[in-house]
Amino acid sequence: MSVSLFTNPMWNGLFGDEDVQRAFSLETTLDHYLAYEVALTKALFAHSLVSAEAKDAVLCGCKGFAPDITRIKAGVAKDGLPIPAFIKQLRMRVGEPYAAECHKTSTSQDVMDTALALALRKTSQILQKRLSAVIAALETVKSANADYPLMGRTRMQAALPITAGDRISTWIEPLKRHYQRLNDVAAEVAVLQFGGPVGTSHAQGEHAVAIAAHMAAELDLRVPEHSWHTQRDNMVDYANVLSMISGSLGKIGTDITLMAQQGLEEIKLSGGGRSSAMAHKHNPINAELLVTLARYNSTQVSAMHSALVHEQERSGAAWALEWMILPGMCIATGAGLQSALKLLKQTEWIGTPLSD
Amino acid sequence: MSVSLFTNPMWNGLFGDEDVQRAFSLETTLDHYLAYEVALTKALFAHSLVSAEAKDAVLCGCKGFAPDITRIKAGVAKDGLPIPAFIKQLRMRVGEPYAAECHKTSTSQDVMDTALALALRKTSQILQKRLSAVIAALETVKSANADYPLMGRTRMQAALPITAGDRISTWIEPLKRHYQRLNDVAAEVAVLQFGGPVGTSHAQGEHAVAIAAHMAAELDLRVPEHSWHTQRDNMVDYANVLSMISGSLGKIGTDITLMAQQGLEEIKLSGGGRSSAMAHKHNPINAELLVTLARYNSTQVSAMHSALVHEQERSGAAWALEWMILPGMCIATGAGLQSALKLLKQTEWIGTPLSD
Amino acid sequence: MSVSLFTNPMWNGLFGDEDVQRAFSLETTLDHYLAYEVALTKALFAHSLVSAEAKDAVLCGCKGFAPDITRIKAGVAKDGLPIPAFIKQLRMRVGEPYAAECHKTSTSQDVMDTALALALRKTSQILQKRLSAVIAALETVKSANADYPLMGRTRMQAALPITAGDRISTWIEPLKRHYQRLNDVAAEVAVLQFGGPVGTSHAQGEHAVAIAAHMAAELDLRVPEHSWHTQRDNMVDYANVLSMISGSLGKIGTDITLMAQQGLEEIKLSGGGRSSAMAHKHNPINAELLVTLARYNSTQVSAMHSALVHEQERSGAAWALEWMILPGMCIATGAGLQSALKLLKQTEWIGTPLSD
Amino acid sequence: MSVSLFTNPMWNGLFGDEDVQRAFSLETTLDHYLAYEVALTKALFAHSLVSAEAKDAVLCGCKGFAPDITRIKAGVAKDGLPIPAFIKQLRMRVGEPYAAECHKTSTSQDVMDTALALALRKTSQILQKRLSAVIAALETVKSANADYPLMGRTRMQAALPITAGDRISTWIEPLKRHYQRLNDVAAEVAVLQFGGPVGTSHAQGEHAVAIAAHMAAELDLRVPEHSWHTQRDNMVDYANVLSMISGSLGKIGTDITLMAQQGLEEIKLSGGGRSSAMAHKHNPINAELLVTLARYNSTQVSAMHSALVHEQERSGAAWALEWMILPGMCIATGAGLQSALKLLKQTEWIGTPLSD
Repeated sequence: MSVSLFTNPMWNGLFGDEDVQRAFSLETTLDHYLAYEVALTKALFAHSLVSAEAKDAVLCGCKGFAPDITRIKAGVAKDGLPIPAFIKQLRMRVGEPYAAECHKTSTSQDVMDTALALALRKTSQILQKRLSAVIAALETVKSANADYPLMGRTRMQAALPITAGDRISTWIEPLKRHYQRLNDVAAEVAVLQFGGPVGTSHAQGEHAVAIAAHMAAELDLRVPEHSWHTQRDNMVDYANVLSMISGSLGKIGTDITLMAQQGLEEIKLSGGGRSSAMAHKHNPINAELLVTLARYNSTQVSAMHSALVHEQERSGAAWALEWMILPGMCIATGAGLQSALKLLKQTEWIGTPLSD
Repeated sequence: MSVSLFTNPMWNGLFGDEDVQRAFSLETTLDHYLAYEVALTKALFAHSLVSAEAKDAVLCGCKGFAPDITRIKAGVAKDGLPIPAFIKQLRMRVGEPYAAECHKTSTSQDVMDTALALALRKTSQILQKRLSAVIAALETVKSANADYPLMGRTRMQAALPITAGDRISTWIEPLKRHYQRLNDVAAEVAVLQFGGPVGTSHAQGEHAVAIAAHMAAELDLRVPEHSWHTQRDNMVDYANVLSMISGSLGKIGTDITLMAQQGLEEIKLSGGGRSSAMAHKHNPINAELLVTLARYNSTQVSAMHSALVHEQERSGAAWALEWMILPGMCIATGAGLQSALKLLKQTEWIGTPLSD
Repeated sequence: MSVSLFTNPMWNGLFGDEDVQRAFSLETTLDHYLAYEVALTKALFAHSLVSAEAKDAVLCGCKGFAPDITRIKAGVAKDGLPIPAFIKQLRMRVGEPYAAECHKTSTSQDVMDTALALALRKTSQILQKRLSAVIAALETVKSANADYPLMGRTRMQAALPITAGDRISTWIEPLKRHYQRLNDVAAEVAVLQFGGPVGTSHAQGEHAVAIAAHMAAELDLRVPEHSWHTQRDNMVDYANVLSMISGSLGKIGTDITLMAQQGLEEIKLSGGGRSSAMAHKHNPINAELLVTLARYNSTQVSAMHSALVHEQERSGAAWALEWMILPGMCIATGAGLQSALKLLKQTEWIGTPLSD
Repeated sequence: MSVSLFTNPMWNGLFGDEDVQRAFSLETTLDHYLAYEVALTKALFAHSLVSAEAKDAVLCGCKGFAPDITRIKAGVAKDGLPIPAFIKQLRMRVGEPYAAECHKTSTSQDVMDTALALALRKTSQILQKRLSAVIAALETVKSANADYPLMGRTRMQAALPITAGDRISTWIEPLKRHYQRLNDVAAEVAVLQFGGPVGTSHAQGEHAVAIAAHMAAELDLRVPEHSWHTQRDNMVDYANVLSMISGSLGKIGTDITLMAQQGLEEIKLSGGGRSSAMAHKHNPINAELLVTLARYNSTQVSAMHSALVHEQERSGAAWALEWMILPGMCIATGAGLQSALKLLKQTEWIGTPLSD
């Protein structure tokens, strides 16, 4: 057991997802912060809110900026989030007389939420690709086993004969709907955050909307109608789809562990996990993991919903809860899709193979 | 305290929602069961799977059928659900030689899930109407208070001045998105269940699809691509929207309780709840309730996600969890919308009213 | 499906628990409110805070008082809880000049929390008795099957042979610990609430402690060190034990559904639920229900923990969340113990019965 | 935002707890695995189940053993847990002819659960010390502010005057009970796991109990009555106390954010977090964090309860869920206690300081 199975080097080959992890890594996160500041500065310049000299100084400062993490850590401990310490270091690097032009009109949440949007855009791409691959793998398994007889079971009791294809269809269909849902929510969350200290963009005056459009184009994000500092519903909708994917994979995992039981032998899996004590065992590790991850995400999604109660113009309490929950849900979903793929590749047959 | 605040006659005027409650009442549920059997019989007849005489006998038996609830209760205790005992009584009423033609080719889950779809269709209509009314009431409050100064607050600290309109906008926008979401998921769940014992509709042979289309038309439900006995994602998606509505109302409730504090006086509410001990108090009951219901639904939604792990062709365990959770979420959402309406009607002003 | 399976007359024979339900019924709740007022009045009189005449008038008013529920319902809608309207009616019945002596020095929360303590005391007695019976039934099943061979299974795979007794032991042991835990938390929550409007009992002056002791003795409850208006940890501890009982029963239910599979036949259950479509089926209804109830309570317990965040001297929001959650957890626990008993009585053998 | 705020070097100064993190670190975990193997080998030797030569070879192999993490990671991906690959490497190091004497009679779960028990023992010590310090700091704050007037507030409305001491008392009392609870559950979980492949310790024959006692003494853990491979109630009880601690701290955090509002000024905090946009702000970061962590743990505890449904002799699915949840709960609890201490040290006064 370790603090986070998602990142621990012993565990993350099973519970983690290195691609999704990268989207949320320290390095990527800092890159996203800088991308925000670059886009902001360019947009402010385009609307004459910073001078050409200031713009150049800020962009130059951003280039290759590698902040001192120890000082950011100290900043987080004091400020609750890294942006004030990050900006302080960045401004020192930009230097006078342009330091104050850096991050101008923005607030910490603008940077962090935009960085999150960028991380989720990357995550969505990874998950969409994986989900496609899982659906394709399922279609392959279905084709190969479609007509093999299988005992249909209801309430854990033998009911009436079906085919392997019948059951596999019920695995595929929800995933197809989730693919569409993931497309929809991916667009919902790939959105710029802007609004300044209290979400009104007042400091940007009449140009606020144009500046946002400029930044969004630069960052390849959508422009929201309004700042979403306290409107977290799109994040929750995203989490909902993540947990639904995990849940539907959990059904597949459960079905496979049940089919793999001795005495039933309704599936043949190659490979399988070893026991430290029983050499004869071939444990359906990936199938079990799908159940674990389904339970995990079904629990976490509750916290995302709870964080909708986000008071006033910014809630440090509710917002930070998202930070603790959402990246883990992304990784758990990615890990589940990976495990599902491995599991389907291990599947030699389902049902009762027909003899020639 | 009482077993269920949703239905207890002392409590349900605040925590309940009589309209939604009616959609899930015993009477309505039994009506839905009968509506299913009527539609099934008509469709079977149209495809020559029952004779005209059998059809007439079954429809006649359904007409005005009021089952003995005590015997159904005994049936639930034995069978885990009411349909076998319900059908047994109905078949006795239909009488020989046509008793067995009643419920032919169907399974309990077909009846119960279709009845749920009908209850949710009614629920969606109620919630959509209420949500519209809440949005309209918010627009009215916004118009009346738009320019009133309000201190913007972030992390529970005074930040920079905004207007009442700025804050109210952040209340309205998510609800508008939820309205669209509710429309979408309402269509997702207003869907016929059919499939027979193991979800394959084998007993209906070549006519299965046509029978389903016939039934769906009769019941004004959508025909699913496939039976969804174990594919519960649409139900979860529905629960997700319910909880998001409650969560966004919870934000409004929190903001209002904070604005209503003595020392801040950023809102004026008429009415308000009495204390049994302090005559001077005017408690913002409806605002607090919105927070309670947000926490409630954010917890419940987790169980709906958990129930996606639905093994084989029917899980008595996972399916029954939905029965325990979803109706309560519907009522909590309805009660929240009612309370929000009351609260907005109590709102005399928000921010600092401008003197003439 | 119906609003509350706990109380719906069609469902409550399986999902409900009539004994626990009675402890939280409207009638019992009103009795508890009155018991509180009687105890308060006697204690105030004993410490000269009300006159003998006032005491007699209040006690006379309490006797046989059957409030108008419709008016209390209207009161709940306005005040958020029933006590102000309840007391108003009771005071009208007591009449002048003593009306104001009724409920003197108390607040709504004193009455409601004490009523809850009384309901939980009764609930604890029911659950303790049931839990004892389940443990005894398990011991009986263990004795009868102790040496029957059973395949030990780990990670859903056949591992090494054990005996039925080995597995049944793992069912019994946690329940025995829960029995002790239930004893402990039953004592924790069977406690008087007192404190008046802001929890300080200031209105009772120097006699506050003595009055509490007097009331607690009258009601056969424990005196707390301090009012627990905002200190809800004992309630959460109680909920924790309820959910642990359900969880441990859920393990038994899962094991039994797995053993009852065709192809394994490691248990023989008599009876079993019918299917409306498949006459040959004998569904392990009670075993599945144990899993459902475990998932249910494991979700609900989260809301109880969330309600620990109970602001200031009384949180309408957090407190009301308990009202929505705790009684249902009590019933689900009771229903689970009932189902476990039925299931164990249906158990003819476990493992492979030895031939003579 | 980052994958795990508990361990990310930018975030873990606020959301993490380096002491608790160390108890679950990779290094410590591997040390615990080795400590188990050492204790096992000594105990087996004491009961003549391994020879002196074998014992020496195994102990020598354990000394300074630093496994190749990359190969363990590959093992986790295949086997679902690290022990088979860990033992394989350790056995290679022990070398023939004694390799097979290493880990003899044990199973992976014996090692991992015992390692967990050791991590929790350390965690308990850290948390107990911190909880004592928080209680002491609260007593100090209470003494200094006891008689300062404070407006008692119920349902977010001014009720009646109390003192700062009255409110602080309601913060201290639950923590004192939690201290006792933590003591109790710390003892519950500081327990050896043993049982071998299917929990019966059959491979250790008649010596099983004596071997366990020997090992427990060596590791300074308690001997359980029986292996607890599937009996996870003590872990859940531990998680319950963690979440109750966080919840009670969340109440303090909420109260402090409310008192710190401009317009109320019922508390004076020194320091406070900076805003990247508003230099005048002093955000009550630590108070908000307490609320976040309360919501976090109240969600996670649900998964621990869910994992009680642990099928047969070992559930890979339910057990792995604990791995994902429990360490994070430990850290969140530790981080909360740290933040509470910081917050109390920042507290200059509460209520209205009396002028001389």
